[in-house]
Amino acid sequence: MNLLFLGTSAGVPTKTRNVSGVALRESKGKGWYLIDCGEGTQHQVLHTKLSFHSLKAILITHVHGDHCYGLPGILASAGMGGRKAPLTIVAPAGIKAWLEATCEATQLCLPFTLEFIDSDELPSVEFESIAVTTFRLSHRAPSYAYGFTERKVDADLNIEKLTQKGIPRGPLWGQLKQGFDIEFAGEQLKSQDFLIFKNKPRKIMIAGDNDQPDLLMDACTGAQVLVHEATYTEEMAEKAGDVGHSYGKLVAAFAESVQLPNLVLTHFSPRYQLNSNATPSIEDIRKEAQSVYSGSLYLARDFSEYTLDKAGRFAELSGE
Amino acid sequence: MNLLFLGTSAGVPTKTRNVSGVALRESKGKGWYLIDCGEGTQHQVLHTKLSFHSLKAILITHVHGDHCYGLPGILASAGMGGRKAPLTIVAPAGIKAWLEATCEATQLCLPFTLEFIDSDELPSVEFESIAVTTFRLSHRAPSYAYGFTERKVDADLNIEKLTQKGIPRGPLWGQLKQGFDIEFAGEQLKSQDFLIFKNKPRKIMIAGDNDQPDLLMDACTGAQVLVHEATYTEEMAEKAGDVGHSYGKLVAAFAESVQLPNLVLTHFSPRYQLNSNATPSIEDIRKEAQSVYSGSLYLARDFSEYTLDKAGRFAELSGE
Repeated sequence: MNLLFLGTSAGVPTKTRNVSGVALRESKGKGWYLIDCGEGTQHQVLHTKLSFHSLKAILITHVHGDHCYGLPGILASAGMGGRKAPLTIVAPAGIKAWLEATCEATQLCLPFTLEFIDSDELPSVEFESIAVTTFRLSHRAPSYAYGFTERKVDADLNIEKLTQKGIPRGPLWGQLKQGFDIEFAGEQLKSQDFLIFKNKPRKIMIAGDNDQPDLLMDACTGAQVLVHEATYTEEMAEKAGDVGHSYGKLVAAFAESVQLPNLVLTHFSPRYQLNSNATPSIEDIRKEAQSVYSGSLYLARDFSEYTLDKAGRFAELSGE
Repeated sequence: MNLLFLGTSAGVPTKTRNVSGVALRESKGKGWYLIDCGEGTQHQVLHTKLSFHSLKAILITHVHGDHCYGLPGILASAGMGGRKAPLTIVAPAGIKAWLEATCEATQLCLPFTLEFIDSDELPSVEFESIAVTTFRLSHRAPSYAYGFTERKVDADLNIEKLTQKGIPRGPLWGQLKQGFDIEFAGEQLKSQDFLIFKNKPRKIMIAGDNDQPDLLMDACTGAQVLVHEATYTEEMAEKAGDVGHSYGKLVAAFAESVQLPNLVLTHFSPRYQLNSNATPSIEDIRKEAQSVYSGSLYLARDFSEYTLDKAGRFAELSGE
């Protein structure tokens, strides 16, 4: 699995950072998922190798504009680019009504079907190689985190059990290895009972705006990576008041408490600059977070790319 | 008056060109008007000196997404940037309903008032230094051209007429020179009857999508500049079929027929590249247009900037 950040600014874009959008790519093939779609996300996609034809789903964390104003344009462009396959949209209910109003008002007739799934019902959605689960967060608008768990994990056949059961070497072994349940000697046999898994399934949590990271305690079980907003430093968060956002240290302290191995912070207020000598700088958020977290900490930039390998090792890919 | 192109691509953005948006700046002060607002227009504005505080009005030519999907984001950012002054939006009626639906669905509460004016009623709108008139075009959706005419033109007093009338040199002369009508010896006297205008008022026509440039014949009277779409070359326009767009030669032939001195083409299909050696290139559109037009022809690029001086001279400013 692979993460590619398309925007890391909160609220408004800056000259160097777009508003929210993250692409999660499947480990095999070209399939990808878009989590949030701020204005200009389609422009960012133009500078990557991502294709709208292989986009499996768009998941919106909440209805605020910096997380969804790019939706009409990205759908229109996918349509003009010839996409025909239905597209799943997992989003709070308001998004469905808004997109319908948009199509109506702007004469947008998409050549593909949108299949809406309401985040407010905390759905679990299974795609071919990834299962998505939904968790509620705390923000000014209903906000959600999405967990992406690998469905098929590399496994070896348990030869001892197969032999014990008397299943003959051949096509049935192949089916079991590929994850299919079989019928043998009048009995239903489950694939997972005859496999030895090499690794735990990969799991990445991607959270929307949220001022209570603790809400993700159960959600983070088994996750190798959490992507979470860190809009401010602690001092700035206090000045900003009750706006429903987290600061770096708060998120990092939570990640430490659940022994999460990898934390990626994003959604930095536009006042924070990339330059580490600037005031304030994104480095200020890093320092605070690092002070309370012993895992691997990453602060995303636009076009930052990370990979999570089969063994659960997470790393930033070097830029082009 | 000054034109700054923020996007020159039709339908979808490319790596080097955004979708439609043009800034028209007043000759004095910082006031500006935004004509069309495709997705990412606010991102383009970040790379200019334009401020959302001095934006006088947004005028939308028609409801298609590549001309209006940047509206919610630009309004939200103007609000977050502290704008308080009301903002005039001249647009087809569908835009008002769509923006209201957007504010509702995405919890967008703007700290300034939107004053909508319905283009479908072909309004004439007077701002402090510019008057805007509206003209109907031909496209798949109701589409409009907006004419921007300078309201105050430099003038000298007609001393001979003032002396003839016996008006004493002093404050009354000053009022007449500044364009105010006066009462003198029981008679209402009109400012314009005592002025000698140095130049014709400046006038720029900016048209939306349109497949019948001839419709602008009357609108172009007195205009020094027409900005018009030229989505294709003639050959490509024939292939594209009845999609409501113009090709360069069609627009240029019209401009020639009304002896328009300056024509700026824009809104090129994304397949046309900037590189003159590419196939197809925007240069192909230029060549066709140039073959039938004897005035000054310009093909806009993103961030192309043009100035129209008091004497009606139009010129491209060299890039930074």
